[in-house]
Amino acid sequence: MKVNVMSDILKANDLLARDIENLLREKNIVSWNIMGSPGAGKTALLEKLIPMLPEHAAAAVIEGDLATSNDAERIAKTGVQSAQINTNGACHLDAAMVRSAIDTLNLDGLSLLFIENVGNLVCPSSFQLGERGRIIVSSITEGDDKPEKYPSMFKTADLVVLNKMDLEQNTNFKMGNFTRGMSATNPDASVIPVSAVTGGGFDQLLDWILQRLP
Amino acid sequence: MKVNVMSDILKANDLLARDIENLLREKNIVSWNIMGSPGAGKTALLEKLIPMLPEHAAAAVIEGDLATSNDAERIAKTGVQSAQINTNGACHLDAAMVRSAIDTLNLDGLSLLFIENVGNLVCPSSFQLGERGRIIVSSITEGDDKPEKYPSMFKTADLVVLNKMDLEQNTNFKMGNFTRGMSATNPDASVIPVSAVTGGGFDQLLDWILQRLP
Repeated sequence: MKVNVMSDILKANDLLARDIENLLREKNIVSWNIMGSPGAGKTALLEKLIPMLPEHAAAAVIEGDLATSNDAERIAKTGVQSAQINTNGACHLDAAMVRSAIDTLNLDGLSLLFIENVGNLVCPSSFQLGERGRIIVSSITEGDDKPEKYPSMFKTADLVVLNKMDLEQNTNFKMGNFTRGMSATNPDASVIPVSAVTGGGFDQLLDWILQRLP
Repeated sequence: MKVNVMSDILKANDLLARDIENLLREKNIVSWNIMGSPGAGKTALLEKLIPMLPEHAAAAVIEGDLATSNDAERIAKTGVQSAQINTNGACHLDAAMVRSAIDTLNLDGLSLLFIENVGNLVCPSSFQLGERGRIIVSSITEGDDKPEKYPSMFKTADLVVLNKMDLEQNTNFKMGNFTRGMSATNPDASVIPVSAVTGGGFDQLLDWILQRLP
């Protein structure tokens, strides 16, 4: 019984996700589902990246959180459109929530849609949101063992942004351990080390994003 | 339909949790459900705390992870009994998993059982494991806004251990924001700042644990 109900939910979600995918393709908008642990720096990444985007790459952001509109307010300060979803306890975004948030945005002239998921390294990976691909933000203060400890999440990433590199000297994070974990879990994903504090690595991140515009 | 199935699961879990609670009470064992984000330092905390425990406070540890036995192996090096649960994708421990793990431990002479949950600041809060209480490990590198952004988790804590205080100078963490968030979310919880690297704050943590032994 439990399994049947779960697969029905996933099927309905997949149908809605396909609608979102079609809508965004028609509008020539590339969307990225941004996932990671609480406090990995998902919002900080967007705050740093968005002002660097060239005029032909206008972005909007959908923020997902259990509670508060803190993140959408932070994004609004960058000058782009933002919408906040409060999941009221749910541990991930689903396609219906994202569809409702998209309906509050003016899509004309947009090239990019960033969907920041709930901070959670497990549940969001099971739910398609109509995205072009997935970006995991992982911070080095979380340790270098995360790809092998949270394989369901890291397996689905197109890009892993390794944040808080400015703290490298103050942690026991070993890059070799992290890349070894990524090679075992998802050898096709790109890995870009950055610091949202110093801005280091953001040129490379910007290139990665712009290369994937239509 | 979905809601009914969910409440059945929770009810079965609560019954099993009550059995665990009774078993541990009979044995005079105090158990703590340790929760927090991936990489907050839950295992590091136990690695530091366990060698400080006096002889009359013998501990065992149950480790929960999606994959790997890394954490149980780290704990085994401290010399205490440890059992690893792999949830195979599930985002939290449940009482049935904990019961199976308890059956692999020799409970004679134990005073403390630490149950380290899956790294996740959302889902574990909904599942009773027969614990005496709950300890959340939150690291300052995650930011000072976590209590208000993850209220369902922070509301259930008896103690919040604020880890990675050694990095305070390198972050923009504001203690006032964190304690304000805790006051709004769960004013009854204790908050103890520590560093699992320097050992700072662990005397206070040890006192807190020992005061709650029978």
